[in-house]
Order: sequence, then structure tokens, then C-alpha cells
Amino acid sequence: QSNIQIYGVADAYMKYGDFMGDDAMGVDSGGLAGSRIGFRGEEDLGSGLKAVFVLEQGINIDSGKSTGMTGDDDKNSGDQTFTRQAYVGLKGNFGQVALGRQYAPGYFTADYDALLSAPGISPMSLLSNFTRLTITPNSAARWNNSVTYNGTFQSVSLSGIYSAGNRETDVKNGDDNNDDDKYGVSLKYDNGPLKIGGVYQGVKFSGSNTIAGVKADETQKEWLIGASYNFGMATLAGSYQQGRDVLGWNGLDIDLWQVGVIVPVGAGNIHVAYAQGDVDKANLLQDDVKPKSFTVAYTHALSKRTTGYVGYTKVDYDDLLWGEAEVLGNNLNGHAGTEKVDDTDLFYVGINHKF
Amino acid sequence: QSNIQIYGVADAYMKYGDFMGDDAMGVDSGGLAGSRIGFRGEEDLGSGLKAVFVLEQGINIDSGKSTGMTGDDDKNSGDQTFTRQAYVGLKGNFGQVALGRQYAPGYFTADYDALLSAPGISPMSLLSNFTRLTITPNSAARWNNSVTYNGTFQSVSLSGIYSAGNRETDVKNGDDNNDDDKYGVSLKYDNGPLKIGGVYQGVKFSGSNTIAGVKADETQKEWLIGASYNFGMATLAGSYQQGRDVLGWNGLDIDLWQVGVIVPVGAGNIHVAYAQGDVDKANLLQDDVKPKSFTVAYTHALSKRTTGYVGYTKVDYDDLLWGEAEVLGNNLNGHAGTEKVDDTDLFYVGINHKF
Amino acid sequence: QSNIQIYGVADAYMKYGDFMGDDAMGVDSGGLAGSRIGFRGEEDLGSGLKAVFVLEQGINIDSGKSTGMTGDDDKNSGDQTFTRQAYVGLKGNFGQVALGRQYAPGYFTADYDALLSAPGISPMSLLSNFTRLTITPNSAARWNNSVTYNGTFQSVSLSGIYSAGNRETDVKNGDDNNDDDKYGVSLKYDNGPLKIGGVYQGVKFSGSNTIAGVKADETQKEWLIGASYNFGMATLAGSYQQGRDVLGWNGLDIDLWQVGVIVPVGAGNIHVAYAQGDVDKANLLQDDVKPKSFTVAYTHALSKRTTGYVGYTKVDYDDLLWGEAEVLGNNLNGHAGTEKVDDTDLFYVGINHKF
Repeated sequence: QSNIQIYGVADAYMKYGDFMGDDAMGVDSGGLAGSRIGFRGEEDLGSGLKAVFVLEQGINIDSGKSTGMTGDDDKNSGDQTFTRQAYVGLKGNFGQVALGRQYAPGYFTADYDALLSAPGISPMSLLSNFTRLTITPNSAARWNNSVTYNGTFQSVSLSGIYSAGNRETDVKNGDDNNDDDKYGVSLKYDNGPLKIGGVYQGVKFSGSNTIAGVKADETQKEWLIGASYNFGMATLAGSYQQGRDVLGWNGLDIDLWQVGVIVPVGAGNIHVAYAQGDVDKANLLQDDVKPKSFTVAYTHALSKRTTGYVGYTKVDYDDLLWGEAEVLGNNLNGHAGTEKVDDTDLFYVGINHKF
Repeated sequence: QSNIQIYGVADAYMKYGDFMGDDAMGVDSGGLAGSRIGFRGEEDLGSGLKAVFVLEQGINIDSGKSTGMTGDDDKNSGDQTFTRQAYVGLKGNFGQVALGRQYAPGYFTADYDALLSAPGISPMSLLSNFTRLTITPNSAARWNNSVTYNGTFQSVSLSGIYSAGNRETDVKNGDDNNDDDKYGVSLKYDNGPLKIGGVYQGVKFSGSNTIAGVKADETQKEWLIGASYNFGMATLAGSYQQGRDVLGWNGLDIDLWQVGVIVPVGAGNIHVAYAQGDVDKANLLQDDVKPKSFTVAYTHALSKRTTGYVGYTKVDYDDLLWGEAEVLGNNLNGHAGTEKVDDTDLFYVGINHKF
Repeated sequence: QSNIQIYGVADAYMKYGDFMGDDAMGVDSGGLAGSRIGFRGEEDLGSGLKAVFVLEQGINIDSGKSTGMTGDDDKNSGDQTFTRQAYVGLKGNFGQVALGRQYAPGYFTADYDALLSAPGISPMSLLSNFTRLTITPNSAARWNNSVTYNGTFQSVSLSGIYSAGNRETDVKNGDDNNDDDKYGVSLKYDNGPLKIGGVYQGVKFSGSNTIAGVKADETQKEWLIGASYNFGMATLAGSYQQGRDVLGWNGLDIDLWQVGVIVPVGAGNIHVAYAQGDVDKANLLQDDVKPKSFTVAYTHALSKRTTGYVGYTKVDYDDLLWGEAEVLGNNLNGHAGTEKVDDTDLFYVGINHKF
């Protein structure tokens, strides 16, 4: 038997408040980090070369169901088993090359986010996910059928990914196998108190993709630049990103910036962040929309692996209508399409345990 | 890496006889205990405090598929991953508080059942499950989005649960988030030969729940009292339980009692139990129905972890019609709704292996 | 805690070429062996007796989804958890008896195949799977609700299986529980350079099974004989198999032979194999069809557990029409039913890592 490591995160919280204007109360999964269980291992092949594999399942710990696989990813045959990552590869001094379901570089934005890319509560995470960007610490940055390269050289890290998408065979008289291909690169610098990085990603929609019955076959193009600096008594972090022709829709351009601060307080930290987006109407929305989000949270380390947290998060969807939110992938939840989406206002308290 | 324990049960048996009057023969899973695999761990946080987590998947070992998630639980997003339990919490001298998919106290009735709450063969398990009670050693006592407290103080154990149900956000002009909430408490005493306990559980159906097109919005209220006494040459066990307004249907009241005995014989035990229910017709059934069940089984310890078993189980559904059985969640299986449900009569032999 | 072993295979490859005539390019899972993760253990019960269990999940490592469960197997309740194997049993000097989802003896044909039964690239695997035989190193040889016996005595191995199929209860006025039963036996001899073996399997379709609206209730009967001999500088391998009344359709008879050679070259091996089938038209196809497949591959051992591979595989479907391929379980993929199926021609390079 090889040396296989079981690892994961169990993160659950109680919430109270409003979600998109509707009363919400209950238990949720993954406030600070998505609950998961994974299996990984590596084998020394000699000459500094190693074989590596990772199989990682995302979990909604509040329901026992899997998480993290939606849309076309979920149309592949089979049920959801390792929804976060599944890959095998080779690692050496040159870096790592791997094949499978893997992260695009735009997943790793935690260094530039005072809320640490916490999926449930980071303003950057919430707004980038809501506006369907793939530079986001969410499932939109997990890509099937991909080849990745990752290398770290002293303070500099370089990542690249090419994904064949979910369509790998031409459909006769239909879409080509490469109509949904994706690609991305990132360059990062991490030295002492300063972290800085840039990401570029592209997602092809060149097949028969439509939105509301109209062809949407542009390539979604995105970039992000982020930085943080640890001043000791506080860490400042922020990022700016753009998406062009999002979802393949010509002119659905999105700008998103966020800034925040982490202030250490005893065994804990206070985290504050604000994010704001700008979504062009692009013959799709009634008007430009500028969603905003704000979070203040306190995290308390009960140990190196276990953290308690409490906080408040607000999202203001500006003048977005429910029918427009539906185009972005949301459920109407009983609302009329012409109704304005009200704020999300949530208080929460939870526990994050790494194992 | 933390100290993670893999554990589980592999239980399979061959069966022969009739199921609800239809010939049945084959291999099934979970005669004595549901097949499962789980991952659990705990971390010492100092001062007697521990972080704990459990992720437990139920398995039909005869088909390799998951088990234990049905109805509204299965409508949450994702596929079935940890269908039995998924939670994270804190444990100390005060007891344990946890968040996730967890057992209601009414799951733990094995101490009062001579058939040890064996899901496939215990009369109490079979009838409580068939009559849709949630005080039952079956999935109806696994609740999503729940907060639990469990504490044991010398001979006394106290358990409480509150579940936000599967609806956590109001639907505009529709159900409220708390229309399917559930709650439960239990108190148990366990000292030497005597075990005794009581459970109370409530399940709200106050939303738009209907049965056969008619509104059913009562709260299902249940209680059970159970006891066992080990006389040395035999252990006597029994319980009595009531359900009121079951499935939210006004007047669908159910009484269920059972009694049994365990007699040690060499390295094995003979188990005998009889259970009888009384289901009020409540403007839903044609007449009151009194289902009965009887089991005699022999279990043989091949080791502390591995047990062989053989037995016979009968269920008499009284005058229940197939159409009525369908209302209780059964498949018609080709029968006319007006046809009477015939007996279940099953012989079985199997093996239960704990790991 | 018992001694539980985690084990598996992570196998991914890049492919380029044509699949059934359509352009194909991307990343796939399981070129040399199906990706999987499993949990197994055994307990010593004394007197040479052991309790054993296996729970094994198949994975599409390129998508993170499960693999290996289709058709009636997938209609059982629950989601796909342990799709490859799930069983518990007893093992001793007499051999092993087990209950659960298990391999039919016809799965184990790797000894007679120069491509080692590699699911994605072995001509024998590809053609036996395509022509719906159950003597095949694919999911058609994984049977639910089965009882198996396996014994090895010196150079001779004997295997038997009986599966109750997926129907275990009679349907009133419908199919009987035993209408989809299956059974199989094999006898193998393995001594020094020579391996030889024979398999027989039967699959009942005696219920209401239809193909294209017409009753198909024959028993599918199959046998295979295979052998290999290691001459040192090369290993010759081959097999011949027949299927009669395949899919229960009277006269849908299939013959399939294959032959190949493995030549060691340094730390690697060259593998070449050719297979050819003969499918009778049987009032179902327009004409007899003789599909052919050829593979040449090179495997290179990076370690005992990790193998790199590169190769080329061709399948010629003879004069098969897309509408006929659909009857055999394929998706039309935009083709007209009257169109001829063009060749599969794939180049690939990948890595197989056992853990």
C-alpha cells in the first residue's frame, strides 16, 4: 500500500436574516471554506520525479449531499463523486503537470481578499460568482478534462491550464469538440509581506450556446490583478477584475473591484471587505447594474486546525430584476420577473475544522 | 494529518419468501444493521474541549448504490454522498453540540428492541417505518440542517435536536422557511441490567403540504417509552409509541407497541419479537388498520466484529389496501389500489461485518 | 479499528483522432485500467477463516463523476457510490464465498489479452463491450445481488456466480423476480509460462424485455476460451468467444476472436493486438456485420506502480448503420440512422498510477 492521506474540511454555520430579500434561517455548509473530504498521495519515482494524485469530494455538510458540480459539468455520465478535484500527474523540479478535473488559476485569489475567498461570506466571492465570472473562488473555476502546469520558483509562481471542456467529440451537423474549450494563466509574486498576482482566463462559447433564445457565441475573456501587504498591525488586500462578453453574450461586460483589511486581535482576526461590480446592460438587462457587497467578520483560532467565526454580510443587487437574476442562473423563488431583487442581509456563527 | 478513523458495516443476506404478498428472492443489504462507510475524527483543543466531525455514507451493498436519503431530503442540490450523517461540532464535559445532517433522538431505540433495531428484520423497525413514524431506527430519523445537543451524566443521557428542515428561505407568496422545521428530545437511564427511556419528536407540515390533493398542515407529534431488563438467562425488551396527525394529516393517529426477548445460547443469541400497530382511518383509509409483525432470529458471533444470522420475519398488513399503502409511500407494484395487501413472509441468512 | 486498506488507480490520458467517424480531442479516464478508489479489509476469525469486505468506486478522473453503472443496475434506488464492487464474505482454505455487487468470471480475461484488458484501448475490450457481450472486462460483467464462489488450488482456479439480477420481487401481472437472473462459471489454469482458461455465462431476459418494440426473451448464452504463453522474448495471447441470442434477441449471435503479442523492450513493453467480430443480422440488422479493431501501444514502467503509455487504436465497424449502433446502446450524436458508422482512430498518451 502507498502512503495515502485523507484530508478535508468540515465547516458548518447557523444563519439568520434575508437572502435576496426573502427571510432565511437555518444551517449551512462552508462559510469559511467549502466542506470536503479528499484522498491524495505521491510516489517517489527517483531522480526527483514524483507521481501524484488527488481525489477530492465537495460536501454540503448540512444535507450530506455533494457540492460543486453544475451546468455542463453535471451532464457528463455518472453521479457526483469527486466534485472538487480529480487528477493524476507528475511532479519534479520543473513543477507539476497533471490531467483531470482541476482548478483554473483564477480560483486562487485568497491572497488578495481580506475574507480569504470564503465562499459563503467574501464579497469578492459572492459578487464574482453571482456575475458568472470564472475568476472566482467557486466551482466556475473547476474545469473538467484539463491539462495543467504549476511551477514555483523562489518567490514566483506560474500556472497554466487548458481544458477541453465537456464536449470532446464533434456532433455531426452540430457543435465541434473545441467549441467549449477554456484556458488560463497566472503569474504570482509572494515575498515577505507583499503578495501580488495577475490572472487571465478565456472560455469559449463558440457553439450553439444561446441566452433567452438568442445566439451567444463570443469568448468570455477575463483578467484580474490583486495584491496584499501585511503591515503587521493589519493586512491590506484588494483586487480589480474584468470580464468581457460574459456567458458568450456580446457586450455583457463586468468590472469588479474589492478592498479589505485583516486586523489581528489576540487569538483572532477581524476581517472587513467591500466589493462593487458594474454589469453592462448589453441588450440583455434593462439598465447597467452595480451590485455591492460588504462583510465584517471575526474569526477565532481554537487551534491551528479549528476556527470559530461570526459575522455579517450584505449584498445590494442595485436595480437588478428577478427576471434578470434568472438569466444569471438564479431561481425565481416565487418572484415575478419584473420585481426588483431586494438585499441579502445575513448574520452567522459557525465552526471550521480542518482534518 | 489528523487522526482520522475509517469505520463501517458490511451486511448482506440472502432472502426467500414473499414481500407484501409477492414472491421475493435475492440478495439484500443491511439485515442486522445498515451497510455503511464513515470517516470520523476529533482534535483536542485543550481545556477538555474537542472538535469532532463525522461523515458517514449509507450503502446498499447488494447494488453499490447509496441508501438512506428520500423525499425532501433528496431534493437538495447535489448527489447522495454522506447520506447517514454529516456534522461538525464541539465536545466537552458539558456534552456535545454539533451542526449538520444528524440523528433525531428517536433513532436510538435499539436498547428496547429484542431485534436490536435491525432495519431489515425488527418488527418495531418495520412497522414504525411503514407507518411513517419518525421515532424509528430508519432514515426518517435523520434530519438535515440540524443543531443537536447530546450529553451523558453517569447513568443518564439527554439529547435534543432542532432541524431547520429542508426549506431555509421563504418562498415569495409561498411556504415559510420554518414550515418544515422539526424538533426532538430524549431522556434515557442506563444502569446495570435496566435500561429505560423516553422520546418526544415533532415535525411541522405547516406549509402547502397535501395528501391526495387535500391540505395536510398539522404538526406530526410523537412519543415513545421503552425499557429492557437483563435477567441473565434472558433480556426482556419492549416499547410503546404514539404518533398523532402523522404526515400532517389531521387525525391520522398511530399507536405501536412491541415486546421481545433475547436468549443467549452458547456463542449466539435467539431473538424473538412481536409488534402491533393501530392506524386510525382518519378520513383517509377505508377502516382502522392493525398491522402486526413477528420475527424469530438466531445471531451467531464469529468474532466481536462479525456475526452470522438466520431468521424468519412476518408482517400482516391487516385489511390495508394497496391504494392506501401507496399513500404511505409504497409502490403499487402492479396491484390495483382496491386490492388487499398480502403478508410479508421472509426467510433469510446473512453476515454482518463491522470494520 | 480494523486494518482497512485504501487502494485505487488514477489513470488519465490525452487523446486525438476520430471516434466513430467524428473528430475527437481531449482528456479521458482509464486508458490502461479504470480509475477507482476502494476500501477493503479482512478480519481473522480463527481456524483459518476470515471475514472480508470490499467497497470500490469507479471514477471518471477527467470529470470527477462515477463510472461503471448503467442500464437496469442504475435503476435501483440511491446514487452511484461503489459502482465497481461492494461485497462482504468469508474466506478460508475452501476458497471465498461472498454476497453483493461482484464480478462475473468473464471480467477476468486480461491473461489472454496482449492489451491486458485495458478498457479504453484493448481490441477485445472494445469489441466485446460494443457488441454487448457480458464476457468482457467492462461493467457488463459487474452483477448486482450476486453470490460468488472463488477458489484457487495450486495452478487451478474455479469461479462461480449467481446473480438475482435487479428484480427481486415479482410484479403482479408482470415480470417474475427471476426473469433477469444471471449465472457464470470459469475454470483457469496458470502454471509458469502457460495460462489457459474457459468461461461460461448466461443472462436471462425472460420477462417483458423488448428491442425496437419486439419481444426479446431468450437467454443470452456465452462462452470464451483463452490462452497465453510467455516465450521470454515475447508473450503470445489470444481468445475466442461466442454469444448466442444476445440481449435476449433470438438469433443475435456474435463470434469474437482476438490475438496479440507483448514484446519487452528495456523498461517497457510493446503491445499489439487485433480482434474481429461477426454479428449475425438476425432480423435486426440489415446485414451481418464484422467489426475489426487493432491497437499498437507502448507502456513504460516509471515504477512498479506508475506506468506511462502511448499508442494508437483503430475500430472499423464494417457496414454497421448508426440506427443499428443505436440498438446496441450508442447515441446517434447527430447522425441519421441510415448513415454508415465511420472508423474510430485514436492516438493517445497517458499515465496510470496505482495507489
